[in-house]
Amino acid sequence: MTHLPDRTDPEGAIAAAAKLCSNRDRWGADDVLGTLNFLDEAKRREGAALVRRGTSFSLAQSFDGNGPQKGWRRRTNPVHTMLDTGVDAERGTQGFPHGIGGADDVVFMPLQASTQWDGLGHIFDHGQAYNGRRAGDVVTSEGDRVTGIETTAGLIAGRGVLLDVGRAIGTDGELPDGFAITVEHLEATIAAQGPSAHVGRGDLLLVRTGRLTRARRDIAQGLGWGDYAGGDAPGLSFTTAEWLHASEIAGIATDTWGFEVRPNEFDVAFQPLHQVAIPHMGLFLGEMWDLDALAADCAVDGVFDFWLTAAPLPVTGAVGAPVAPIAVK
Amino acid sequence: MTHLPDRTDPEGAIAAAAKLCSNRDRWGADDVLGTLNFLDEAKRREGAALVRRGTSFSLAQSFDGNGPQKGWRRRTNPVHTMLDTGVDAERGTQGFPHGIGGADDVVFMPLQASTQWDGLGHIFDHGQAYNGRRAGDVVTSEGDRVTGIETTAGLIAGRGVLLDVGRAIGTDGELPDGFAITVEHLEATIAAQGPSAHVGRGDLLLVRTGRLTRARRDIAQGLGWGDYAGGDAPGLSFTTAEWLHASEIAGIATDTWGFEVRPNEFDVAFQPLHQVAIPHMGLFLGEMWDLDALAADCAVDGVFDFWLTAAPLPVTGAVGAPVAPIAVK
Amino acid sequence: MTHLPDRTDPEGAIAAAAKLCSNRDRWGADDVLGTLNFLDEAKRREGAALVRRGTSFSLAQSFDGNGPQKGWRRRTNPVHTMLDTGVDAERGTQGFPHGIGGADDVVFMPLQASTQWDGLGHIFDHGQAYNGRRAGDVVTSEGDRVTGIETTAGLIAGRGVLLDVGRAIGTDGELPDGFAITVEHLEATIAAQGPSAHVGRGDLLLVRTGRLTRARRDIAQGLGWGDYAGGDAPGLSFTTAEWLHASEIAGIATDTWGFEVRPNEFDVAFQPLHQVAIPHMGLFLGEMWDLDALAADCAVDGVFDFWLTAAPLPVTGAVGAPVAPIAVK
Amino acid sequence: MTHLPDRTDPEGAIAAAAKLCSNRDRWGADDVLGTLNFLDEAKRREGAALVRRGTSFSLAQSFDGNGPQKGWRRRTNPVHTMLDTGVDAERGTQGFPHGIGGADDVVFMPLQASTQWDGLGHIFDHGQAYNGRRAGDVVTSEGDRVTGIETTAGLIAGRGVLLDVGRAIGTDGELPDGFAITVEHLEATIAAQGPSAHVGRGDLLLVRTGRLTRARRDIAQGLGWGDYAGGDAPGLSFTTAEWLHASEIAGIATDTWGFEVRPNEFDVAFQPLHQVAIPHMGLFLGEMWDLDALAADCAVDGVFDFWLTAAPLPVTGAVGAPVAPIAVK
Repeated sequence: MTHLPDRTDPEGAIAAAAKLCSNRDRWGADDVLGTLNFLDEAKRREGAALVRRGTSFSLAQSFDGNGPQKGWRRRTNPVHTMLDTGVDAERGTQGFPHGIGGADDVVFMPLQASTQWDGLGHIFDHGQAYNGRRAGDVVTSEGDRVTGIETTAGLIAGRGVLLDVGRAIGTDGELPDGFAITVEHLEATIAAQGPSAHVGRGDLLLVRTGRLTRARRDIAQGLGWGDYAGGDAPGLSFTTAEWLHASEIAGIATDTWGFEVRPNEFDVAFQPLHQVAIPHMGLFLGEMWDLDALAADCAVDGVFDFWLTAAPLPVTGAVGAPVAPIAVK
Repeated sequence: MTHLPDRTDPEGAIAAAAKLCSNRDRWGADDVLGTLNFLDEAKRREGAALVRRGTSFSLAQSFDGNGPQKGWRRRTNPVHTMLDTGVDAERGTQGFPHGIGGADDVVFMPLQASTQWDGLGHIFDHGQAYNGRRAGDVVTSEGDRVTGIETTAGLIAGRGVLLDVGRAIGTDGELPDGFAITVEHLEATIAAQGPSAHVGRGDLLLVRTGRLTRARRDIAQGLGWGDYAGGDAPGLSFTTAEWLHASEIAGIATDTWGFEVRPNEFDVAFQPLHQVAIPHMGLFLGEMWDLDALAADCAVDGVFDFWLTAAPLPVTGAVGAPVAPIAVK
Repeated sequence: MTHLPDRTDPEGAIAAAAKLCSNRDRWGADDVLGTLNFLDEAKRREGAALVRRGTSFSLAQSFDGNGPQKGWRRRTNPVHTMLDTGVDAERGTQGFPHGIGGADDVVFMPLQASTQWDGLGHIFDHGQAYNGRRAGDVVTSEGDRVTGIETTAGLIAGRGVLLDVGRAIGTDGELPDGFAITVEHLEATIAAQGPSAHVGRGDLLLVRTGRLTRARRDIAQGLGWGDYAGGDAPGLSFTTAEWLHASEIAGIATDTWGFEVRPNEFDVAFQPLHQVAIPHMGLFLGEMWDLDALAADCAVDGVFDFWLTAAPLPVTGAVGAPVAPIAVK
Repeated sequence: MTHLPDRTDPEGAIAAAAKLCSNRDRWGADDVLGTLNFLDEAKRREGAALVRRGTSFSLAQSFDGNGPQKGWRRRTNPVHTMLDTGVDAERGTQGFPHGIGGADDVVFMPLQASTQWDGLGHIFDHGQAYNGRRAGDVVTSEGDRVTGIETTAGLIAGRGVLLDVGRAIGTDGELPDGFAITVEHLEATIAAQGPSAHVGRGDLLLVRTGRLTRARRDIAQGLGWGDYAGGDAPGLSFTTAEWLHASEIAGIATDTWGFEVRPNEFDVAFQPLHQVAIPHMGLFLGEMWDLDALAADCAVDGVFDFWLTAAPLPVTGAVGAPVAPIAVK
C-alpha cells in the first residue's frame, strides 16, 4: 500500500521521488519533449480506432473574465475586448465599401488562466529544469528558449483514457477537498471501470475529481468560484509519483486548478508533485480541464477510452499554454 | 465555366451571390453554427478511419512578435511576457519552499493575429449578421453575444481534405499573388490529386496556395514578411461562392492572410467573398494556416484526406479565435 | 436650501438639471474642452503664485494589481509585467556589449483603473454626448474621435482648492458611506476653512470625503479594499449640479471611486450626476484621487489652495485617462 | 575641450567616467532617488516664480498605435481598445437606467513606448544597479522592488530649462543624425540663449535636437517614422558625462528616442552614456519628449526657463514610466 511521506521533510521526499522517477537523459541530452516521447504513431492509430460513434466533447472551460482566477502571482482572468463591432458596422462608421462590415477582437490573458497544459519550463527543482538544464538557461524574460510549448505543436493527439475517480470512489460523483488520490484509488477506479480503462505507455490520462462540478454548483447558487483557483481541492497524492512514472503515460490532466491534492501533504509545501513530475519526469500536466460531459457519457456507455486531441496554442517560448481539447468517442 | 463578375458592381454581384448561396433559416432561426451543421457524427467516423500511419501534423503558424501583422486596424503581433522566470527561480528570488521554482506567462494578442478561424460574427452584409440578425444585436463592445466562437467548442473534428492548388496548378508549387482560384482550378486539382481528394458535405477543406511558402523563403532571405498580412495574395475567386455553397463543406482554410484573392476582383472592393460566405452561408473560414508539411506528405503518398481536429480557443464572445489544428494521417 | 429630488423620477430630475446646467454651444459648436475653457492664463498665474514653501504632494493612488477593481464591466486592476529584468542582466543572458544591462516593462490597464480624469466622451445622456453630439458620432470602437482626452493635453494646470468635507463635516475626518454632500455642506466647509478655500471660475476643485482613508485602514487590518470600487460611498449629491455649474470650476475630483454619492439618490439610478455633469456641463471629473497627504498638510497650515498640475496621459481617443497629479504649496 | 573617447575601448571609458561621476552613497545606502535629491523646495519656489504669462505647453507625444515603435525587444506601440462605446450607448445595448450611457477603455503598452522617464532600475553596469545594488536584488520579474518609479511620485516639479541646441547650433533648427552634442555645444547654447538658460543644481534640463521635428516632417510627407525609434539620431555625447554630473541637474530629457547620440561613439557600443548616467549618477533620463511648441515660444520671447511638472505614471515597480509633462511660462 501507499507509503505516506514524512510530513516534516518535503525536501527529502522530493529528492527521493525525483531519483526514482527521473527521465533525465532517457531521450538524450537535447530532448525537449519528455513524456511526449511515449506518444508514438502506433498510439495514434490505437486512439483513432476508438472513434466508434463519432460523438465529440469539448474539454475546455471558458476563457473569459468570469473565470476563477483571483490575481495570485498576477494570474488574472482573460480580458477580451473588441476592435470593431457589429454595432459600429450597422451604424456605418467603419468606412468599408459595398456594405461589408466587420468585427475584430483582442485578448489579454495569463497562459495559465483557464484550461491549459504546463510546459516543461513551468516548474524547476533547486534551479534545475527538465533534463538537468539550469533553469536560467531555459527560461529568461524572453520566454522558454529551449522547451517552449511550441516544440510540442502537432504531437498531442492519441488515446485518451478517463479515470473518473470522483464517480468510482467519491460521494455523489465528487471527492472532497483535501482528498489525496493514491495509487490504490487509481487502481480501484481502473478496476471498477473495466477493460477500456487500462492505462499504459503513451496514453493521455484524464483524472476527474468532481471539483469543477462542485464549483459549478456553487456558481449556480450564487456563491461564485470560491477558492477553485489555488484553494483546497482533491488531487493526486504525492505518493503517486512512482506510479505515474512507471505507467509511462504521455500526459495527465485533471479538472482542478493544480493537479495535485491541496492542501499539499507536507507541513510546509507548495506543489511537491509538480516538482518531481515536471523537471524530473518531463511529464505534461493539464489543469482546469472540463471533464464533466465526457465523464457523464462514459458513465452511461461504460467506455472510458477515446480519441483525444489537445494541441496547446503554440505561443513561442511559452511555459504553458491554453488548450481546447476535443475527445471523440 | 466561371462567370467573371462585373468589376464595377461589387454590390450587385454580392447581392446576387448572397441570394443563391444563402443558408438563412436552413437550420432554424436560432441557429448559431452555420455550416458546422454539416459536420455530423458519421463524418467524424469517416475522418477517424483515415488515420492509417498515425503521423500527425501541426497546421499552426507561430504566435509571437515576429509574425506578419503590421497594425492594420490594430491587428498587431502577439506580445508574450513572463510573470516569473527560470532566471528568477535559479537566483532564489521567488520565495517558494523546498527548492521549487516556477515560471508563468501572459499574452496580449489580437484573435486574428495568427492561425485562426473566423467566427460567424466576424463579417456583416449591410448591417446584417448570419441568419438575418442585425449586426448590432449580435456583436457589441461586449463581444459576440449570439454566435461567439465558444458555441463551436468541441465540434470541429472530422474529415479534412487538402486541395494543393499551388502544386497542381502553380509553378514550383506556388500560385502568384493576385491569382484567383476558380471552380475550374479546384476541380482540376481534385482530378489531379485522385479519389482521396473528393470534397463533400461536412468536410473541412484546406486550400494551399503556396503563399506562406513564399513568405518563408523571403524571411529566410532577410526580406521579412513583406505584405503577407493584408497585401496581394492568391486566393479563392469571388466566383467560387456557389461551388462552396453547393459543396456543403463545414469549413475552409487557406495558407493566406485573407482566404480570398487579393487584390479583390472588383474595382473597389474589400473581401467580397467574405461578405457572402460568412453572413449568408454561415461558412467557417480559416486563415493563416500552415499547410506546408502536410502538403509535402500528401504529395509523397498521394493521399489527400485525413483526420483533422481544429478546435478554436473558446474565448467567450470572440468573433474569431486562434486555433492549433492537428491533422493525422 | 437643497431641494431633494423626487426619488421615483430620476429621468425627470436629470432632464430638469440638464436644462439648468447646460453649457451646450457656450464655447461654440466645435468645442471639445467644456469647462476647461474656464481655466485661463490668469488662473495659472494665480495658481503658481500659491507656491509659498515649495512642498509637493502626489495625489495619485498606486497603479498595480493590488488595486480596488473587481472586474465590473471589465475594469480590472493594472497588470505590470517585465520584458527584461535585473536578474537577467546580472546573469548575463541579455546579449548586450561592454557590461550594459537593461530592464523594460509593459502594462495592461483599464484607463479607469486608478487615479483618473473622465473625458467628455465617458458619459452620454439619451445617446447624446457633450455639446449635443450624437454619442455614436463621438465614440466608436476606434475611440473618441472628437473629444479624446488628448485634446486636453497641456491644459490642466492651475489653482487647486481642497474642500475637506470629511474633516469639516464628518466624524474623525470621514463621511460615512451614503452621505450625500449638499451645497450646504460645501458652503459650510468653505466657511470653516477660511478665505483660501474660496471656489470660483477656472478652479480645480478637490473634495475629500475620507472614503480612501477608510479603505486604507481596512486594508491595513487585512480586510482588503472591500467595495471601494463601485460600492457605497459618500459623494456629491445630485442636488449640487446647479452649484457646480454656477461655480464655473474647470474640474472637480474626489477621493472616491465614483465622485457622486452611492447609493445614488433615486430608487433606480446609476450615476445621475455624471449624466448632467459630463454631457451637459462638459465638466471634467476626477476619481480615485489620493487627497490624504495634501489634506493633512492643509489642516495644519490652514491654507487650502495650491498650484495643481494634473495632465492626463494623452492616450489618443481615450474617454478617460490615468493621471499623476501634483499639488505644490 | 572635449576629450574624445577611445573608440575601441568602451568598457574602459565607461569605467573611467563611472568613477568620476559616481553618486553612490552620496545620499546614503538606502537612497532610491538619485539626482532627484537635488530638486528641493527652494527649487520649486524658483520654478513657480517663472510663471509670468500663464501659458502652458504639453511636452508629451501621442500614445497610440501610430507611434514610432517597431517591436525591438517587444517595444510595440500602445494598443487602445474600447470596453464600451457611444455607438453602443446610442443603440441602447448597455442596460443602464434612465438614459445614461457610458464608454470605457483599456490600454496595453510598453512603458517606454512614448514620452517617458527612465527609472533607476532601467539600466545596469556589469550587473550593478544604482547605489551599488546587485541588479537581481532590484529588478526581478515582479518589477523593481527597490527603485520602482512610484518612489518618485510627487517629486518631479520644479524649474525647467530648455537648451535648444537644434536652433543654436544646427541648420534650420535641427541637428543631423549622428551629431554628438558636446559640452562645448551645451555651453555655446547657454551663452547664445542668455541668462534664463543657466543650468544648475536641481534643474530639469530639456535638450532639443530637432530630431522629432524632422520625424514629423517625414510623416507629413508620407514617409512614416522611419528609424526614429532606435535608429540614428543626434544626442548627448558620451563626453558630457562629467558635465552632467558636475551640473547637479535633477533630470534631463530630449526629443529623441534614446537621449544619447546614435550611432554611439565607440566601435561596438550600446548606449554607453546610459551606463554611466543611470547606475552611477542616478540621473533621471527623459526620452521622446515633444519640445517643439515650447521651443518655438522660447525662441520668440527669449526666455528659456519655466515651471515644469513631469510626474511619471506611478506604476508600482516600473523601471520607467510614461509621463505627460506640462511646462508653464
